[in-house]
Amino acid sequence: MKICVLPGDGIGPEIMAEAVRVLKALDLKFELEEALLGGGAVDATGTPYPEATKKLTAEADAILLGAVGGPKWDTLARELRPERGLLGIRKDLSLFANLRPAILYPELANASTLKPEVVAGLDILIVRELTGDIYFGQPRGIREENGERVGFNTMVYIESEVRRIGHVAFQAAQKRNKKLCSVDKMNVLETTQLWRDVIIEVSKDYPDVELSHMLVDNAAMQLVRAPKQFDVMVTGNMFGDILSDEASMLTGSIGMLPSASLDANNKGMYEPSHGSAPDIAGKGVANPLATILSAAMMLRYTFNLEEQAQRVENAVKKVLAQGYRTGDIYERGTNKVGTKEMGDAVLAAL
Amino acid sequence: MKICVLPGDGIGPEIMAEAVRVLKALDLKFELEEALLGGGAVDATGTPYPEATKKLTAEADAILLGAVGGPKWDTLARELRPERGLLGIRKDLSLFANLRPAILYPELANASTLKPEVVAGLDILIVRELTGDIYFGQPRGIREENGERVGFNTMVYIESEVRRIGHVAFQAAQKRNKKLCSVDKMNVLETTQLWRDVIIEVSKDYPDVELSHMLVDNAAMQLVRAPKQFDVMVTGNMFGDILSDEASMLTGSIGMLPSASLDANNKGMYEPSHGSAPDIAGKGVANPLATILSAAMMLRYTFNLEEQAQRVENAVKKVLAQGYRTGDIYERGTNKVGTKEMGDAVLAAL
Ligand SMILES: CC(C)[C@H](C(=O)O)[C@@H](O)C(=O)O
Ligand SMILES: CC(C)[C@H](C(=O)O)[C@@H](O)C(=O)O
Repeated sequence: MKICVLPGDGIGPEIMAEAVRVLKALDLKFELEEALLGGGAVDATGTPYPEATKKLTAEADAILLGAVGGPKWDTLARELRPERGLLGIRKDLSLFANLRPAILYPELANASTLKPEVVAGLDILIVRELTGDIYFGQPRGIREENGERVGFNTMVYIESEVRRIGHVAFQAAQKRNKKLCSVDKMNVLETTQLWRDVIIEVSKDYPDVELSHMLVDNAAMQLVRAPKQFDVMVTGNMFGDILSDEASMLTGSIGMLPSASLDANNKGMYEPSHGSAPDIAGKGVANPLATILSAAMMLRYTFNLEEQAQRVENAVKKVLAQGYRTGDIYERGTNKVGTKEMGDAVLAAL
Repeated sequence: MKICVLPGDGIGPEIMAEAVRVLKALDLKFELEEALLGGGAVDATGTPYPEATKKLTAEADAILLGAVGGPKWDTLARELRPERGLLGIRKDLSLFANLRPAILYPELANASTLKPEVVAGLDILIVRELTGDIYFGQPRGIREENGERVGFNTMVYIESEVRRIGHVAFQAAQKRNKKLCSVDKMNVLETTQLWRDVIIEVSKDYPDVELSHMLVDNAAMQLVRAPKQFDVMVTGNMFGDILSDEASMLTGSIGMLPSASLDANNKGMYEPSHGSAPDIAGKGVANPLATILSAAMMLRYTFNLEEQAQRVENAVKKVLAQGYRTGDIYERGTNKVGTKEMGDAVLAAL
């Protein structure tokens, strides 16, 4: 069981240290190897996604990532920017299935900007296609035409790409409340007309799952109006980027939300849904729980260690119940702790 | 002053009747001519955007639209669907500047699903580019390749398209709180890298406006987390479709929100931000205020009748203060009225 650990930039190294401590405490036979990705990799090697990292991520069974990026690298040329590393790994390893839960922990209900009755008990799973769409479509670029610059990108989906993410989504729905909402913009975009057609075809294999369709603009509204109507949502890479971030913010506690990006054999990259938070980097105050919960997802999906995954998740629930809070989820009457103390609390709860 | 009136489908005719009554009550020299658009046009003429409508909308100084679409026409071929009419008018008349205010009326603060302190006083203007982007980009379609269907669309912006919507947005910001946030996905899409570059160039003409940039996924989050940080937002057609709907739902009272779609000479199409609500069509319960406020926007932008526009807007504020509410914004202790009674109340308040 070989895990490639990519601490990354900003708060990445701090939160990763706690997740690694938790993994080690489980006393399983993991081999952990660290590599560079993102801005730190640019500084050290001149590229955000060095060959050594490519090799290690290709060999590993799973990848645990902190976060990449920061203002320091924002003005670099496109090919040198930290996110190229992230996009490179997704594509090279065919990590096409991005699973992003948006869960509101009862103890953190106040953190949401939405009224408690609207979000209490929220538990949505967004399944985002991650290796297709306008993210990778060709042709793309900026060209000159009649003396003017023209920017262009290509949205594209092949039916087999839609089919495989469809199966992932239906199977996820089967394990939950058996409701799947597929999001598209079929009234305008032919690409998503195909998306809808194929999802309907795939649905024939899952008669026990209730399928609905929603236009992306309406989905963005419904997430605000009545988010609890959703169980599993499935959508393409671009719409998924927007809707999964919107959904995670409904909880008000994005520092708690993990994510998984899987290939067809459950090899995966696991990372918190939040970013590298350069403003609080190095201060020891970042919330490590999303990274710890990402490690739990890794135990579940890649290593099929459901029991160990639940052990970690229950430990996180316990520290919340005990009142431990990092700054991002702190409220009066709870116990404000730093990154390392939060890690200590999880270890104790294990 | 020639106005083309397009009642459209669903609740369209009911809400339009009230807006027309309000316009007539102003005693200005309007010439009003009605035409068909959308599903009703398909039923009557076989096309959602008949030649007679094309002619009338081309001749008119302004267009007032109710709403189009409904389940009855959802299964028609792409070229016959009601929204083709809408997209056709936008493109034919070069209505490139879509202005969508998201305003929370103090009397309706409870309607929002967000906590009052997060949305009280919300007043955002979203400026959406409306005739470019992936909505109209070529090539597009569904083709067969290696025995598989492939769906594809093209996102494209020319620098002059970005420049002209940029000017509209900066000028709108100058008349408001002088803050403009431009939304893109420059870390992934070259089209929006060009967008950002051009917006920065345009900003040189508006040193009094504070320009910021935000990635679309972050914007979708920030609208939920802290919407009052925004004054004017400007973005492309596709992102604007999603973000403007999300922003309007923050108010919880989308039945109150008008919109304008303008060309370079302030000819415009004006319509409520909400849809055709087929479920309540024909019952006389729909909220006509968004359409009435759309007529007010028409007075302001196309006819430069600022005083009359304010008269209508003040009348709407007055009926809210008087406690009149249609079903969509009703709460206990207020006076529930139907579409026509709401129109009566606005006329009385005028
Ligand atoms: C960093 C960026 C390229 C990335 C994306 O757009 O996919 C991020 O927003 C995400 O959602 O993981
Ligand atoms: C009906 C549809 C084509 C349209 C759009 O996507 O532009 C609508 O959602 C809107 O925002 O006016």
